[in-house]
Amino acid sequence: MRILLTNDDGIHAPGIHALWHIFEDWAELFVVAPDSERSATGHGITVHQPLRVEKLTFAKPHFHGWAVNGTPADCVKLALEELMDDPPDIIISGINRGANLGTDVLYSGTVSAAMEGAIYGFPALAVSVTGWKTTDYGLAAETTRFLCEQLVEKGLTSETFLNVNVPDLPREQIHGIGVTKLGSRRYQNIFDKRTDPRGRTYYWMAGEVKDVDAGEGTDIRAINEGMISVTPIHFDLTNYTIIQEVDQWLGETQRPFLELIKKREGT
Amino acid sequence: MRILLTNDDGIHAPGIHALWHIFEDWAELFVVAPDSERSATGHGITVHQPLRVEKLTFAKPHFHGWAVNGTPADCVKLALEELMDDPPDIIISGINRGANLGTDVLYSGTVSAAMEGAIYGFPALAVSVTGWKTTDYGLAAETTRFLCEQLVEKGLTSETFLNVNVPDLPREQIHGIGVTKLGSRRYQNIFDKRTDPRGRTYYWMAGEVKDVDAGEGTDIRAINEGMISVTPIHFDLTNYTIIQEVDQWLGETQRPFLELIKKREGT
Repeated sequence: MRILLTNDDGIHAPGIHALWHIFEDWAELFVVAPDSERSATGHGITVHQPLRVEKLTFAKPHFHGWAVNGTPADCVKLALEELMDDPPDIIISGINRGANLGTDVLYSGTVSAAMEGAIYGFPALAVSVTGWKTTDYGLAAETTRFLCEQLVEKGLTSETFLNVNVPDLPREQIHGIGVTKLGSRRYQNIFDKRTDPRGRTYYWMAGEVKDVDAGEGTDIRAINEGMISVTPIHFDLTNYTIIQEVDQWLGETQRPFLELIKKREGT
Repeated sequence: MRILLTNDDGIHAPGIHALWHIFEDWAELFVVAPDSERSATGHGITVHQPLRVEKLTFAKPHFHGWAVNGTPADCVKLALEELMDDPPDIIISGINRGANLGTDVLYSGTVSAAMEGAIYGFPALAVSVTGWKTTDYGLAAETTRFLCEQLVEKGLTSETFLNVNVPDLPREQIHGIGVTKLGSRRYQNIFDKRTDPRGRTYYWMAGEVKDVDAGEGTDIRAINEGMISVTPIHFDLTNYTIIQEVDQWLGETQRPFLELIKKREGT
């Protein structure tokens, strides 16, 4: 087994070290992770400046990997295209400090790294512990190991990865593992408007979470009920259900438009 | 009508000015756009540094708007939460220089701005002209105006926006407007590995596009055939088709796992 580990909290974050230690007896591990925290980078990639890679080794506890001055998606691309001699069997992104639930997965660097892996066709997981102040990655690491063992045995439809959220709760309060759909999250009071010492306005993005859809079957509901949430995610954003509807209204109206734009030519 | 305009090429880019001029007789326009190019930022948002906003006005041709030191998604959030007194009727992101087709929409700042608008529940469009060297935004602007007029009349399922790509072709070579699904794009030779004057390695991300799925009905096929492509996009990434499958294999195996983790408590 060969596993590629990455994250968006940076190579020094405890979550990725927890993954190393839970997997080191089971697989050959390759760590390619941002050199510092890159949360909320979404699926950004770095095309306007060069990427640099630095090999890091820690003696106690043992850990080594490549630190990249880029985003989580950059890290996965560099690992697969340049740094690894052989392809991985699984790609794991995390363990993220803080939940990645519902609409928030769109902003998540952790999730985008797993998505990049799935785009390349590899089995992938994104793993997060809910709770920004968590220091305990043990349960999330054990859950990740369990899911990877299952994944290797059962396989997963290609172009799909698993987004895993583990509640920041004592183990006896964990009620099970639920397979979920993404709920919907919005934020209130998103911007904190301030004035700097020179009298200029600036904004901090923050906000209080408001769960708009925490209904039956959602990842948010599962976490609220003390379940570990596993959501299968794909990256085809097409809304197939309305293709026909849009096609219909464009079918009726596009002819006069097309005639018009051709008449305008040369003006 | 009130329209919010944004982009990822920055407030000085010709594409957003072309949108201004095609819409100024039809709607009240608000421009909130990055202060410089932010392409390939994906759906990143800025949470680790403060955002600043600067009002810009150009006399000839007339144009004004707010420049933000952030991503396209930041711009939409700031516009809706802080800068606009009343909500927009439509949000338009573009006109982007270069296609946003297939898998590439995941990396696109242009598309993420429209998606942010859709998350807030507003009708939204992302518009791109294929061809990195295009200087003609006229046809794309006219197409955007046509689609917005249609959108106002016909409406669009909530949580969905339109991703529009206009071929960089003479008008007489445009064969129509096709409603499409996202195709699949991959790149070859993604990294250009170089050595700096101090002997250190660095990488430029680049690569040659390889259309993996340019099949019937895809956006890529439409563009290749001289069609304007309109793809309805939503932001629910759940892969509903495999929820049951994953549920099945976790249903069988989670009980022993849960018993195990509880036994380990306190160790």
